[in-house]
Amino acid sequence: MLALVEQDVARIRDGAAALDRSGEFPVETFERFLDNGVMAGTVPEELGGMGVSCLSDVATVLAAVAEADASTALALHVQFSRGLTLAYDWQHGSAPVRALAERLLRGMASERFVICGAVKDHHTAVTRVTPDGRGGWLLSGRKTLVSLAPLATHFVVHTQKVVDGEPVTLAAAVLDRSAPGLTVLPEWDGLGMRASGTYGIVLDGCRVPAEDVLHRGVVGAHSDRALAGQTVSSITMLGIYAGVARAARDIAIGAAARRPAAPPAAVRGLVSDIESNLYTLQASAAAALANADELNDDLTGDLDERGRRMMVPFQCAKLAVNRLALSVVNDCLTVVGGAGYGAAHPLSRLYRDVRAGWFMQPYTYVDAVDFLSGQALGIDRDNDYMSYRVSASAAR
Amino acid sequence: MLALVEQDVARIRDGAAALDRSGEFPVETFERFLDNGVMAGTVPEELGGMGVSCLSDVATVLAAVAEADASTALALHVQFSRGLTLAYDWQHGSAPVRALAERLLRGMASERFVICGAVKDHHTAVTRVTPDGRGGWLLSGRKTLVSLAPLATHFVVHTQKVVDGEPVTLAAAVLDRSAPGLTVLPEWDGLGMRASGTYGIVLDGCRVPAEDVLHRGVVGAHSDRALAGQTVSSITMLGIYAGVARAARDIAIGAAARRPAAPPAAVRGLVSDIESNLYTLQASAAAALANADELNDDLTGDLDERGRRMMVPFQCAKLAVNRLALSVVNDCLTVVGGAGYGAAHPLSRLYRDVRAGWFMQPYTYVDAVDFLSGQALGIDRDNDYMSYRVSASAAR
Amino acid sequence: MLALVEQDVARIRDGAAALDRSGEFPVETFERFLDNGVMAGTVPEELGGMGVSCLSDVATVLAAVAEADASTALALHVQFSRGLTLAYDWQHGSAPVRALAERLLRGMASERFVICGAVKDHHTAVTRVTPDGRGGWLLSGRKTLVSLAPLATHFVVHTQKVVDGEPVTLAAAVLDRSAPGLTVLPEWDGLGMRASGTYGIVLDGCRVPAEDVLHRGVVGAHSDRALAGQTVSSITMLGIYAGVARAARDIAIGAAARRPAAPPAAVRGLVSDIESNLYTLQASAAAALANADELNDDLTGDLDERGRRMMVPFQCAKLAVNRLALSVVNDCLTVVGGAGYGAAHPLSRLYRDVRAGWFMQPYTYVDAVDFLSGQALGIDRDNDYMSYRVSASAAR
Amino acid sequence: MLALVEQDVARIRDGAAALDRSGEFPVETFERFLDNGVMAGTVPEELGGMGVSCLSDVATVLAAVAEADASTALALHVQFSRGLTLAYDWQHGSAPVRALAERLLRGMASERFVICGAVKDHHTAVTRVTPDGRGGWLLSGRKTLVSLAPLATHFVVHTQKVVDGEPVTLAAAVLDRSAPGLTVLPEWDGLGMRASGTYGIVLDGCRVPAEDVLHRGVVGAHSDRALAGQTVSSITMLGIYAGVARAARDIAIGAAARRPAAPPAAVRGLVSDIESNLYTLQASAAAALANADELNDDLTGDLDERGRRMMVPFQCAKLAVNRLALSVVNDCLTVVGGAGYGAAHPLSRLYRDVRAGWFMQPYTYVDAVDFLSGQALGIDRDNDYMSYRVSASAAR
Repeated sequence: MLALVEQDVARIRDGAAALDRSGEFPVETFERFLDNGVMAGTVPEELGGMGVSCLSDVATVLAAVAEADASTALALHVQFSRGLTLAYDWQHGSAPVRALAERLLRGMASERFVICGAVKDHHTAVTRVTPDGRGGWLLSGRKTLVSLAPLATHFVVHTQKVVDGEPVTLAAAVLDRSAPGLTVLPEWDGLGMRASGTYGIVLDGCRVPAEDVLHRGVVGAHSDRALAGQTVSSITMLGIYAGVARAARDIAIGAAARRPAAPPAAVRGLVSDIESNLYTLQASAAAALANADELNDDLTGDLDERGRRMMVPFQCAKLAVNRLALSVVNDCLTVVGGAGYGAAHPLSRLYRDVRAGWFMQPYTYVDAVDFLSGQALGIDRDNDYMSYRVSASAAR
Repeated sequence: MLALVEQDVARIRDGAAALDRSGEFPVETFERFLDNGVMAGTVPEELGGMGVSCLSDVATVLAAVAEADASTALALHVQFSRGLTLAYDWQHGSAPVRALAERLLRGMASERFVICGAVKDHHTAVTRVTPDGRGGWLLSGRKTLVSLAPLATHFVVHTQKVVDGEPVTLAAAVLDRSAPGLTVLPEWDGLGMRASGTYGIVLDGCRVPAEDVLHRGVVGAHSDRALAGQTVSSITMLGIYAGVARAARDIAIGAAARRPAAPPAAVRGLVSDIESNLYTLQASAAAALANADELNDDLTGDLDERGRRMMVPFQCAKLAVNRLALSVVNDCLTVVGGAGYGAAHPLSRLYRDVRAGWFMQPYTYVDAVDFLSGQALGIDRDNDYMSYRVSASAAR
Repeated sequence: MLALVEQDVARIRDGAAALDRSGEFPVETFERFLDNGVMAGTVPEELGGMGVSCLSDVATVLAAVAEADASTALALHVQFSRGLTLAYDWQHGSAPVRALAERLLRGMASERFVICGAVKDHHTAVTRVTPDGRGGWLLSGRKTLVSLAPLATHFVVHTQKVVDGEPVTLAAAVLDRSAPGLTVLPEWDGLGMRASGTYGIVLDGCRVPAEDVLHRGVVGAHSDRALAGQTVSSITMLGIYAGVARAARDIAIGAAARRPAAPPAAVRGLVSDIESNLYTLQASAAAALANADELNDDLTGDLDERGRRMMVPFQCAKLAVNRLALSVVNDCLTVVGGAGYGAAHPLSRLYRDVRAGWFMQPYTYVDAVDFLSGQALGIDRDNDYMSYRVSASAAR
Repeated sequence: MLALVEQDVARIRDGAAALDRSGEFPVETFERFLDNGVMAGTVPEELGGMGVSCLSDVATVLAAVAEADASTALALHVQFSRGLTLAYDWQHGSAPVRALAERLLRGMASERFVICGAVKDHHTAVTRVTPDGRGGWLLSGRKTLVSLAPLATHFVVHTQKVVDGEPVTLAAAVLDRSAPGLTVLPEWDGLGMRASGTYGIVLDGCRVPAEDVLHRGVVGAHSDRALAGQTVSSITMLGIYAGVARAARDIAIGAAARRPAAPPAAVRGLVSDIESNLYTLQASAAAALANADELNDDLTGDLDERGRRMMVPFQCAKLAVNRLALSVVNDCLTVVGGAGYGAAHPLSRLYRDVRAGWFMQPYTYVDAVDFLSGQALGIDRDNDYMSYRVSASAAR
């Protein structure tokens, strides 16, 4: 997969500035990824995909793409993540879950399915499924920050499931893009990650057949087993920020090395910091990815414990990666000097893109502090961010 | 002057987002500043201006503007800086220098003169004045990063003076915008400070009368007396970054205080850091400004020593202000969360604007390290950045 | 006062290493300070003292001493602090408070009174005064971290006042060192500040006459007016850490400047950071001291508001001073290299001494985060550390 | 080996405070390590040792010891390092080198040889071997910072080799402790690492047989192949600082978790930083150790390139480990509060011990900046610290 992706890296890099400026989505790049099978990279081979299941490998591919354009990598991550989590569902789920997962995975491999996750509610709405009275479900609400949306053929919509007389639970409903009541809104206009195709979707009484709903746990159950799937779903994004930092490093070192005069003292200090921080960033990410890969295959022990043992190193690494990537990009800007401050200079895009990492779940910086300190100090807490978001919105 | 400026602050704030997006210059704001006398704020009262000569006061005004829009403050700084340095020339210069300064200052006060400084050569050209053979001068070259240029009526162009048989010296030539051979290029498209009207100018054999050239020292003379004027010219920019940090702080504290739930641990830690860092930033800037004000009026001692005693605290404070302002804005983004990452959110503009400070002379971060360490360790060095830039370009 | 102290600075510096090693208290230095009137430096002139009431001046004197030895400065601070707060009581207190304050201040000026504050309870005991049934009080408990204790003639013991049927209040009882039931324990053996004469005292039913008790507020009253006195009592300690940082800076710059070879890049970067950080540290401390001096003389407004307006800048500056002083000392160690790591090298003492600032009230780092974030976000909280400590110990 | 060491860890931990205070060397611990074979841990099995050749494993053992006492780990490292480098000489050296290495390794395994390295010249002397005229050598000079010296049976003395008419080269001479002219001086009295048995040795015309001298390269040859051996010799010390940070972490988390009240916001933030920084520290160290292990066994390519490819990641990780370990210990002190500032508290020892890492070769912080920036920017430089130290001392 890395080899396939690397064929396109130069072209992606060349187009990045224009797409960043306009905020357009690189449709052509993703058409190529659909053509050459990259979009089915994490679909199991038995179902027609390339069968890359190793999280470290996925992160390596995303890093290579992100070195050229972080927005493209972020959108690609969405599809990869879907393949990884659906493959788990296909291997370990109940019969109906397996059936749904298989259908979607086969579609990704042979029918050009592009499947986005829609997690975060728009601040104006709460997304809910309710029984339609005929054994199916009705889905209404509004989602935001759905990357890769321009090409989406399906959305996996994370939602509350509200049934009279039952506690509120979490669920994920799979919707076809053509579903009546679904509107895709090109709403994103961000500081960075501008070409990631990050849109919103409005859901107005969309019908969802019973077999297209994945049922999750009770809200507020403080179940930590969900942390495993959330780790798998998101940890490969560490590769994106490694790629961003590496791109910045190469630009800065190149600029400094081309100057005819001996480098000033400050530049040597900055370059040394850049090298060490980039190394540390990559080592942290690699360690957390290796840990997740190891635990990902092992379902023998306590599943809550497994969830925590995947998430804690991920979050330790995420904090480090977020900080170090920002620090590397900043130091690179200082090395390059005023030229890097031009809107057309790639460093100015990296300076904006790199900041996205702090806001991504699981966890934002603020939530990570609660999670990591809670784990270290033995404080009970709902660690499932999909669950505590629902609780928080209910409290408002 | 502060009172006058504060009348416009709300309007400036409201328009900042649109101008940032388009990169247009806020012509209307500056027309108002021309109308109400703010643009003559630092012109001596005797010459018709408001007579604000205290650097701390000027910085306070710039901070108030920068809280609303940093680009506007940066452009306003250009005119203020011109008033401050020309007032010095008018008070302490030789007879021809006094005459030129008086003409320009009176023009600022009563003829709506807008006078930009043009310091940095475009990377493609070296700017030089040479004798025109008739007692005057010919000016050619290209300048970049000239803020406030859309409204400029005059440019003070810093240049090498090249006369056969003499060592190269520095000079500043005053050019009317209508001078034949002068072209103003709207070239700036920056990561931040997008509405500062930062253009380039091309100089193609412009004639400059003898009396419109200010003669400065020999290139490479290692004269430190020039540091005094360079401090006066630039130190009030510390106020701009204080204003940026304060604007970010108010947004973040406001957002956090409005939330109904008790603030999470990380938010309390970030808020505490923001408060302390903003305080420290402002205290550093205020101390360096007070020091500059004190020495500015005292010409009794060694002038090289005076130059160093103005520049060292300025640079100590500039390093701190640059770092702390960036840190405050970053912490504010983390407090606000993903909403602050939208291109339309004011924090996302502040995140881009705040980074400009590191590149501004005197000194960029890299040069400041050489200067401060050189002063502490007793290392001889050409501290005049206009001089060593000429030397550096000659070495290429 | 500064001139008097500077006469002894060289001798103090020479003796610092030996006292640090042994942990002995510099009795001779303080005998000299008693002889030459320094120990009455903050006693009003009308009562026979030197009448230094300006907090900035006191901090300057402490910084000069701390440059030579931080332990000595810390112990001297204790007496200065007593003079400052008793002078306030003498000027603004009720008649019995004025009488007590006058007696103690006159004793400091003419009878060599050395008056220590005893604030922190030993972890094994709660200190309480209770009525003795004859109009006086009985004081029992145990205090720790009482600096300057070897020379103390009196102790001002902060305590709970427990009277049947009344809410618990705070009080301060003045005890003569010869009081029956009082034992002074030379218990301190610290990482740093080893020569500060920091002992413990055990109180076993000590009788205190009614007129020697200062009555303070109710525990848990959330009264912020007490913050003014707590600021006055402690803010001059910022000078101690400024002195520590300056001493480290001078050692490091001296060592680097003496080396024959051109300084390596890393040394230039470190030196630049040291200069900027020391400047910033001093500017922050000076700003907070000037603010406290200004408000100290103004009792016209809301006293709770005055308390907060003194404490907030103090805490902003304290966080900055603690961080920057540690950073400066660390950078200096790196500049000096392995030689600075020897136990006999003054930098190794500074490395240990500088860390004390983080633990000093008001506030420790942990409490300062709660205070500053609480103030910024409008969160109600008991800001009086003497009060909330009592509440916390009651909760155990 | 880890299992053997862990038997002693509790005892080492219990004794650490007393040895730190007195500065005595833990002779008993090392007698046990001689008895149970740990001191021959890195000696090849064929020669009677335990045959641990994996650098990652050695670092793991040192980390376990350092968690109990860093001084002990530092001294143990000396012997481990000797085994590792001599094993390389035994496998890859010329016939006489192999013979010498075999003799020493067999001695370590079965004759309780304890072999110290003596690298750094005392500032008063330059150490040199010169021909004795009879085919052997005479060694004179003075060395400092020789850890594990109290038990040493042999010293490997790094020295200049000065022969008339030849360029100065580097060499290492093996001396028996009983060699006439050799004096061991218990000179160390450090801020930290106080029980590491770090002494000096004076060499006054010591005779060294020809076969006991290892001949190295020409001074100033800019040969990078030596970096491989220097990496092997020192990289396992990363484990020591990992152990120090882990010990601090356990103390702080334990203290915070034991407190009855909910942790304050600042404590949660600090704990989160501690967890992330410790993770990152360990990940960096592990990555550099794995890289060194991989290249250690591969002599097929360019040996200079191999040297650089071992040293660059080592230095990237060393910078990170030094910074992060210091940061973790500092944060732990803040969490624990004033109690941790007592001289008898283990954190106060860790605060002193952790700072040693910055001064250790290869490279000190200052040299690492030159090395890493030089590598990134393609600047030629003598990277062999033993060589450039000789050049620097010659330049004085």
